[in-house]
Amino acid sequence: MWVKEKLAGYAAMAADYLRDRFGRRLREAGTPDSLTAPMEYSLLAGGKRLRPALCLAFAEMHGTSPKTVLPFAAAFELIHTYSLIHDDLPAMDDDDLRRGRPSCHKAYGEAQAILAGDALLTEAFGVMAETAPAVPEKAVLAALAEAAFAAGSAGMVGGQMLDMDYTGRDGVTLAQVAAMQAKKTGALIRAACVCGAVLAQAAPEDVDRAARYGAALGAAFQIADDILDVTGDEKTLGKPVGSDQAMGKNTFPSLAGLDKSREMALAEAEAAVAAVSGHDGEAARFLRELARYVVTRAA
Amino acid sequence: MWVKEKLAGYAAMAADYLRDRFGRRLREAGTPDSLTAPMEYSLLAGGKRLRPALCLAFAEMHGTSPKTVLPFAAAFELIHTYSLIHDDLPAMDDDDLRRGRPSCHKAYGEAQAILAGDALLTEAFGVMAETAPAVPEKAVLAALAEAAFAAGSAGMVGGQMLDMDYTGRDGVTLAQVAAMQAKKTGALIRAACVCGAVLAQAAPEDVDRAARYGAALGAAFQIADDILDVTGDEKTLGKPVGSDQAMGKNTFPSLAGLDKSREMALAEAEAAVAAVSGHDGEAARFLRELARYVVTRAA
Repeated sequence: MWVKEKLAGYAAMAADYLRDRFGRRLREAGTPDSLTAPMEYSLLAGGKRLRPALCLAFAEMHGTSPKTVLPFAAAFELIHTYSLIHDDLPAMDDDDLRRGRPSCHKAYGEAQAILAGDALLTEAFGVMAETAPAVPEKAVLAALAEAAFAAGSAGMVGGQMLDMDYTGRDGVTLAQVAAMQAKKTGALIRAACVCGAVLAQAAPEDVDRAARYGAALGAAFQIADDILDVTGDEKTLGKPVGSDQAMGKNTFPSLAGLDKSREMALAEAEAAVAAVSGHDGEAARFLRELARYVVTRAA
Repeated sequence: MWVKEKLAGYAAMAADYLRDRFGRRLREAGTPDSLTAPMEYSLLAGGKRLRPALCLAFAEMHGTSPKTVLPFAAAFELIHTYSLIHDDLPAMDDDDLRRGRPSCHKAYGEAQAILAGDALLTEAFGVMAETAPAVPEKAVLAALAEAAFAAGSAGMVGGQMLDMDYTGRDGVTLAQVAAMQAKKTGALIRAACVCGAVLAQAAPEDVDRAARYGAALGAAFQIADDILDVTGDEKTLGKPVGSDQAMGKNTFPSLAGLDKSREMALAEAEAAVAAVSGHDGEAARFLRELARYVVTRAA
């Protein structure tokens, strides 16, 4: 399947960067081994590298080689990985498993996991800054501000806080869950798309299209994920089916039912496709097929 | 005392920024109230605002108005505050008190404290980016990379990890403790000085001097702090005297004795003074007097 191969190609670029250049960066800087170990344990545990792939594809679609924006794209994986480590902590979702193996705090201890997450988040911004001067400083700084906003208190962290506020609570509406997910998962996915376009110095209307694509893809992705938590198999999920329900989480299927959730996921995927319909080339084709592929997993 | 008044002046600028502009920024962005509350609880709990003051003073000494670099200077307080919140967590130093009142997780819960810390760290980089275009993008990005390095895996977070590795362990040397403290406390203090100079587009040799000043001041400050943990009063410390010893921490006094520690603190303070001895004006005078003031607390 072409889209899976293309995704794997982008993912391999990001994974190479994280393993080789980022690994060397940590060692040359003088990071204690006791910190490098839990950072790399979680960072190199696999995963689809979706966020870097989106950043690379948007840059490529707007005429900038993926190689040029690679540090910035990989930084999204650093942020994503830190968020998984902290979300798994006993005080948060208390997950013992992540991607089919012990979560970071289970493997290394809680203090180590907190610090590994803190370090990954901090390094993300240092890595972003490395994209200059290959990309002009002004564009790098604009993209960095976008990423910080998406990852921060009104984005991903704020979404995680709302998720905890809503868990186990009655009367939470579908609109509230959608808004929470748009922050918790959607904001960083959207920012990966926007930053790819910003780093490629795309026209403002193309940056807007990247934002629309990212927001729709993020929603499609999250709804599909919620559906898979109900219908999926444990091998794909890397954790027991029904974990969200067991925790009393309010999700799309729990509030709207499976059929309605599938409809919503498809509609979001088509909105994403429409946002990049005016572009030619492999990267644009990848982005369109990716949006549809994301929801077929849960169809 | 002139130096205390001058420090209070810089601190008030930073505090105003954090309370007013940063507070408005959070609210306008759509940060959930349940996240804003623990963030502001810790951020507005007082403190000397030493790191912002250093950044402001170095910018001023090199001809850039403190106002111009204020967001960046305040960002150091966001980073410092996040580090205190995470250090106090049960899995880390397990401190119930901070600045004489309940620590963040005691007041709001552990998940909220983890997320408040994560959000403060993330917002710090967004706030730094706001310093452009009043400061040219290239200088902002260089300063941001410096701050990320200092706060990251080879700096503050790495130092905290080493501190935990060393706690309760026999055979830790004074050199190891000095190197650990240079990361844990020193790196961010040093970066605040360096970034002030970088944002003011100071000459490379002046940036080097800022680095030497910051490294020496950071060491003086930390040794004085270790001494105060042994000899201070609880009102000043905001926590019980002897906390470090009770936790089995290896400190300067525990390894070198009080007299030798005092000597070392004074020598570091004089090294800091020497690093900025070639400069005239109020900001330079402030930096020299500050270095001596920091150690008189523990004399």
